[in-house]
Amino acid sequence: MVKSMFSSKYVACLVSSIILNALFIINIFVGGQWNLSWTSRAAAEAETVAAISCSGHGRAYLDGLVVDGNEPVCECNTCYAGSDCSQFIPDCAANADGGDPLFLEPFWMRHVASSALVEAGWHRMSYTFNDHTFISKELERIIRKLHAIVGNAVTENRFIIFGAGSTQVLNAAAYALSLENTSSSTGIVASVPYYTLYKGQAEYFSSAKFKFQGDAYTWRKKSDAITNMIEFVTSPNNPDGRLNKQILHGPNVKTIYDRAYYWPHFTPIPAPADEDLMVFTLSKLTGHAGSRFGWAVIKDENVFNRMTAHININSMGVSMDSQLRAFKLLKAVLEGEGKEIFDFAYQTMKARWERLTMALSSSKRFSLQKNNPQYCIFYNRVREFSPAYAWLKCERKDDKDCYAVLKAAKIIGRQGNKFGSEDHYVRLSLVRSHDDFNILIDRLNKLVSEEDGAKTM
Amino acid sequence: MVKSMFSSKYVACLVSSIILNALFIINIFVGGQWNLSWTSRAAAEAETVAAISCSGHGRAYLDGLVVDGNEPVCECNTCYAGSDCSQFIPDCAANADGGDPLFLEPFWMRHVASSALVEAGWHRMSYTFNDHTFISKELERIIRKLHAIVGNAVTENRFIIFGAGSTQVLNAAAYALSLENTSSSTGIVASVPYYTLYKGQAEYFSSAKFKFQGDAYTWRKKSDAITNMIEFVTSPNNPDGRLNKQILHGPNVKTIYDRAYYWPHFTPIPAPADEDLMVFTLSKLTGHAGSRFGWAVIKDENVFNRMTAHININSMGVSMDSQLRAFKLLKAVLEGEGKEIFDFAYQTMKARWERLTMALSSSKRFSLQKNNPQYCIFYNRVREFSPAYAWLKCERKDDKDCYAVLKAAKIIGRQGNKFGSEDHYVRLSLVRSHDDFNILIDRLNKLVSEEDGAKTM
Repeated sequence: MVKSMFSSKYVACLVSSIILNALFIINIFVGGQWNLSWTSRAAAEAETVAAISCSGHGRAYLDGLVVDGNEPVCECNTCYAGSDCSQFIPDCAANADGGDPLFLEPFWMRHVASSALVEAGWHRMSYTFNDHTFISKELERIIRKLHAIVGNAVTENRFIIFGAGSTQVLNAAAYALSLENTSSSTGIVASVPYYTLYKGQAEYFSSAKFKFQGDAYTWRKKSDAITNMIEFVTSPNNPDGRLNKQILHGPNVKTIYDRAYYWPHFTPIPAPADEDLMVFTLSKLTGHAGSRFGWAVIKDENVFNRMTAHININSMGVSMDSQLRAFKLLKAVLEGEGKEIFDFAYQTMKARWERLTMALSSSKRFSLQKNNPQYCIFYNRVREFSPAYAWLKCERKDDKDCYAVLKAAKIIGRQGNKFGSEDHYVRLSLVRSHDDFNILIDRLNKLVSEEDGAKTM
Repeated sequence: MVKSMFSSKYVACLVSSIILNALFIINIFVGGQWNLSWTSRAAAEAETVAAISCSGHGRAYLDGLVVDGNEPVCECNTCYAGSDCSQFIPDCAANADGGDPLFLEPFWMRHVASSALVEAGWHRMSYTFNDHTFISKELERIIRKLHAIVGNAVTENRFIIFGAGSTQVLNAAAYALSLENTSSSTGIVASVPYYTLYKGQAEYFSSAKFKFQGDAYTWRKKSDAITNMIEFVTSPNNPDGRLNKQILHGPNVKTIYDRAYYWPHFTPIPAPADEDLMVFTLSKLTGHAGSRFGWAVIKDENVFNRMTAHININSMGVSMDSQLRAFKLLKAVLEGEGKEIFDFAYQTMKARWERLTMALSSSKRFSLQKNNPQYCIFYNRVREFSPAYAWLKCERKDDKDCYAVLKAAKIIGRQGNKFGSEDHYVRLSLVRSHDDFNILIDRLNKLVSEEDGAKTM
């Protein structure tokens, strides 16, 4: 009896132990962690930092500031403070200025396993890839595939070049299209309202080759007489989301189509874009502005070669780390049917536009741009625009400085004059974080509620 | 007896099972893998690719070309071929052209755990850091610490700016130092032999602001009469490794010290550099040329602000991915006393110089630059130079095209004229991979052995 009890205890112990072993084995094999060796330290480090709670109003990063001890501290969103970012700062101004595309951050939080990147210390130390170019062929392949799935650009028989964000690519394009070996300078224009960078770059880098010449409309009738013109066409336009077309035509006119926002989250896609030179950026596609990764799709080989030479002398190509990141992120985008990110991003932008329209619906003081719905080949139906920015107009004659009107109501937008336009206009960014957008809507609600003096707060 | 045997078997089983339990637990806790969740897929992926054997003559990368199936294939070093890079191509030319710093790759293979980087999909999507700058403060802190440990630069009370490699930083410096709002253009000079990029950039970006004016020596006596001059001083010099000092002096002369090679692997460090504007790069420190990360140490706040403005309009700062990579790599460098990488790199360069000197010791046709030993505050002793490049001279009058002489012997160097010098000179890169260097020495040995006709092969 004693022996029997003894052996049944043994059996119970043995069974437990075997079950525990089985669990370990399942954990290890299903978790795929069996062979992890040199990556485990860095992986544990990254997971530790990712697990730091910042109350949903901030984030800790691997390379974040370290105050006490060794772990990075929370970096709080605008209007939030405290060690865990839980304190709301009541009098804080809503930031609707820059185009930081943080509205996509929640998508990457949800797809954290497919988008995580593990990079060895010895990864691609060379200046170039094995084919002596600065361009990852696999990344190029993925970009072409993505354009094909979305249907927003023709890439067959086109060259693709990479740059440090569309910023560097746009400048390379302006240099490349300016004629070489000529004493006459090329004029650079864009139709008002235009993205301020075109003017900023053309003026900063002003050379014998090119000169900024203002609004494209003012050159419409003169353009035949002018030798060389480059028109920047932003489509969808920054700030107003319109699907701009070129204003100038003729044998001496060259165009650079800035297609940064030509993705289904912001606009109907009526047809694949098929211009001579089209510029795209990761920033407004996946939301990774900080990675500084942009590309151009180019028809002409000479233009491609000149742009390549420009990027080389400017920065010797694009960071291998940015290219690897873009590769990993776009691979995650393409998992499944490759439509999930667009659905997420479109729903987010659509919901934001609904809230914004609602907030301003009773206002006579402020109006928004109108873009009529169009057929979208990506969603196979007529749909509304949901642009990255609101192009707000202060309708009252006295509100000449719309930026100041908003600023007094604790809303920071961007002045109309920065887009070559009147200061009756202000651009409000709608692509920023959930927190920034919520505060913007709160401030707008308050401003509109005070419009006729009916409500005081 | 049967029962006893039965229970002793039980005991044996139980003990084994418990030992296995213990082993699993030790593996899990000591391996630090207990909690790995979202990183494990990417970690396994990276380890799988890293484990692909390329015979030590090539490497497979995460974003490498995929031919069959899903795994990237081996990318072979110059002169090696085959699916595992095991086939030597006998007639292949030695590549001693570019400054690809692959000589440091073995260091990172040895320190693979400390240098591995795990980056979440949501890592730093914004254009800027939380302080609204493009500069990681933690990375800046690490860079200052590294300069302090090495003793190669004074960084106290200096500003630090980042750029896409020293390439972008050098151009930003030239723009920043060119006077604003003036009709007279600034001359840009460098003493022969000089790094060709200074000329290339100045000519390509030639504007109303600056113009390339050739060799600094020819302006030595004229410089007082000239309004504005910028002298690029490369110290140690590329191509010859000399610790250059500025040639021009005076109130209208500004200098940009290119300190890319001012690290203990290449040169004695006589004292901490303390110039107004010093440029460094990750490429020649850790070997990560592909990461495009450089920095400048700047005394004057106005110059710092202008350079910041330049980098912003050119590329809106530096890739967050490059900054995170630099952060991780430099943190690994600083582990322990922070001297291990310099010891490895110095020993490698020293050994290469010994082999090179030996190969050319019996030659009367070819000579190398001579740099007299100097006291090094890093190693606390007098030591030889071990520059990144050999500045080879073809001594025969007939060998006017030294590049062609070497090319005929299947050695690809870089022509003297690219450095503003005579074509009696050729630069040979000594910082490339072990394979490239071995082939170079083989080819040189053969070339020298044929010099007097004594040997034929």
